[in-house]
Amino acid sequence: MRDEAAAEATVRDIGEFALIERLRGALPPETVASDRLTIGIGDDAAIWRPTPGESLVVTTDGLVEGIHFRLDWTDRSSLGHKTLAVNLSDLAAMGAVPRLATLTLGLRGDERVGDLMAFYEGVGALARRTGVVIGGGDIVASPTALTFHVTALGETRGGRALLRSGARPGDLIAVSGTLGASAAGMRLLTEPYESPRLNATTADALIAAHLRPEPRLALGALLLDMGATAAMDLSDGLFGDLPKVLAASGVSAKLRADALPVAAAARALFPEEWLELATRGGEDYEILFTAAPGAFAAIRNAASRIDISLTAIGEIVAGEVSQTTLTMRGLDGVERPIVTGAFDHFR
Amino acid sequence: MRDEAAAEATVRDIGEFALIERLRGALPPETVASDRLTIGIGDDAAIWRPTPGESLVVTTDGLVEGIHFRLDWTDRSSLGHKTLAVNLSDLAAMGAVPRLATLTLGLRGDERVGDLMAFYEGVGALARRTGVVIGGGDIVASPTALTFHVTALGETRGGRALLRSGARPGDLIAVSGTLGASAAGMRLLTEPYESPRLNATTADALIAAHLRPEPRLALGALLLDMGATAAMDLSDGLFGDLPKVLAASGVSAKLRADALPVAAAARALFPEEWLELATRGGEDYEILFTAAPGAFAAIRNAASRIDISLTAIGEIVAGEVSQTTLTMRGLDGVERPIVTGAFDHFR
Repeated sequence: MRDEAAAEATVRDIGEFALIERLRGALPPETVASDRLTIGIGDDAAIWRPTPGESLVVTTDGLVEGIHFRLDWTDRSSLGHKTLAVNLSDLAAMGAVPRLATLTLGLRGDERVGDLMAFYEGVGALARRTGVVIGGGDIVASPTALTFHVTALGETRGGRALLRSGARPGDLIAVSGTLGASAAGMRLLTEPYESPRLNATTADALIAAHLRPEPRLALGALLLDMGATAAMDLSDGLFGDLPKVLAASGVSAKLRADALPVAAAARALFPEEWLELATRGGEDYEILFTAAPGAFAAIRNAASRIDISLTAIGEIVAGEVSQTTLTMRGLDGVERPIVTGAFDHFR
Repeated sequence: MRDEAAAEATVRDIGEFALIERLRGALPPETVASDRLTIGIGDDAAIWRPTPGESLVVTTDGLVEGIHFRLDWTDRSSLGHKTLAVNLSDLAAMGAVPRLATLTLGLRGDERVGDLMAFYEGVGALARRTGVVIGGGDIVASPTALTFHVTALGETRGGRALLRSGARPGDLIAVSGTLGASAAGMRLLTEPYESPRLNATTADALIAAHLRPEPRLALGALLLDMGATAAMDLSDGLFGDLPKVLAASGVSAKLRADALPVAAAARALFPEEWLELATRGGEDYEILFTAAPGAFAAIRNAASRIDISLTAIGEIVAGEVSQTTLTMRGLDGVERPIVTGAFDHFR
């Protein structure tokens, strides 16, 4: 079969077993074999040799068509990138070294093989860049929605990891990068939007923030080395995720709305909603962390040397484990309690 | 909320975050915490300490409603058991020690919380019995089908594992237990069946073989210790799975139909189809392995001491990597080539 014809073929045309071979071929060679991956794709299980003395860091995250993505909003390569990226983002938030991933596809059967290969090229490019090997996976039939499930394995650095539970009263609360760009990009994909403020470059940047988040792996390593007290990645929005750090640490927090590093384009395009997008929009995949005030300046300087901006947005205050609270001083200078809550798939 | 009311509630009633707490509570304590699981359910990722010197054995397998199971055919506890069991079966076939699993649920939202807790009780009972800890997972929305995805981690024993690639000409081919019971049980679930030969005990045993397969972990360890040359677990049927061993090893094989250990009840109930059920029915989750003829008797004796029967069903013969062949001497004494092929979800 010529390559072009093969790309036009559907999963049903070539079958599960030929598909596995083609998908393996779409991954860069160094992501399917390494001297630490003794057995890769093709046996009952993969065999991988860990680094002596380190612990394993294990996370899993699934993407479901119609819930987490729509095929008319994303190219396949970006979808592959994001599927791996959201898992590596969890490893980044632990300060872990990414190592190995498995990937399970749920397919209807009418998917074009070429589209799935483009998906794997997106997975493979990010895997190569981050030193991840793909150890295997599974292909299952899915009655309606295309689904992707990744389990990512990392390793601790020197036996240590960044947890959610270490925030202490007096710590500064900070985030990397900007907030709200991904949610604004999602909004542009969802609804027709006309504005003199919107140009193609801005729209592309916001949409890219949504479709191709970059896991903050180097920052996670830096935060671990420089003594950040707690960290997590922002997937459910600041008001959804910060409460998880507070609950794990048994503390409360005060934020300042005027300190939030809201993405400038999101602020300009959505003058009524930017604060909502930045605090509840979700999918920023930035790192939220806490650090002692005396450590923060050095951390920020070190991060700026790897081109990552860090912004202090508030502070940890004493609170009870059973009843943590989050307040924010609004743009009007008035401090109010925040109704917290992550995006819940079911409520 | 009283327990009864909570069990009647749906996922949508209580939300994603309360659900996670309830499901964690449905697992036995020793399966959610151990001195090797530094961080379990609740942070960005789990942290787990491997055994020094061993490699990691990683496998993943998903079950999708309507494809792999139907809720009107299985109780929830059995479904939880099977979801973990099919993954542990892959570890068994590698001779690995099962250690850690993650579990992702894809839910519509209308599921009863009590049903999901029963599912977790099934997972937890098998996890406890096999020494597995549940490190975490993910809950995602699923538009139509209930889905379960497990990634299971095991460890090598003394750095060694059983592979598919070690079969050599002259080796005996053998299987554990019996073949065809699971497929016969599935048939009883699928179609109304009337027969004077069918009594409730027989039907229950066949259906149990389908709903609650037992991963052959002790046998995998024994085969590794006693020098089996290749192994895999039978999920896609003998004629689907044996060719994978042949291809990985670059050999061919000759089977004898009269030697197959077909489940007696399957043979009695399906006089026309038992050979088909035993060779292509799938989901036996027995171990298919090869061993030098001189080693087989000792392996069989050792297995019988742990109440596992082993049966030699044929032998490995020389073959080409590019063109392995499988033949079987039929019940009529005539040797014929077998049209091989695993169940393909898409063809």
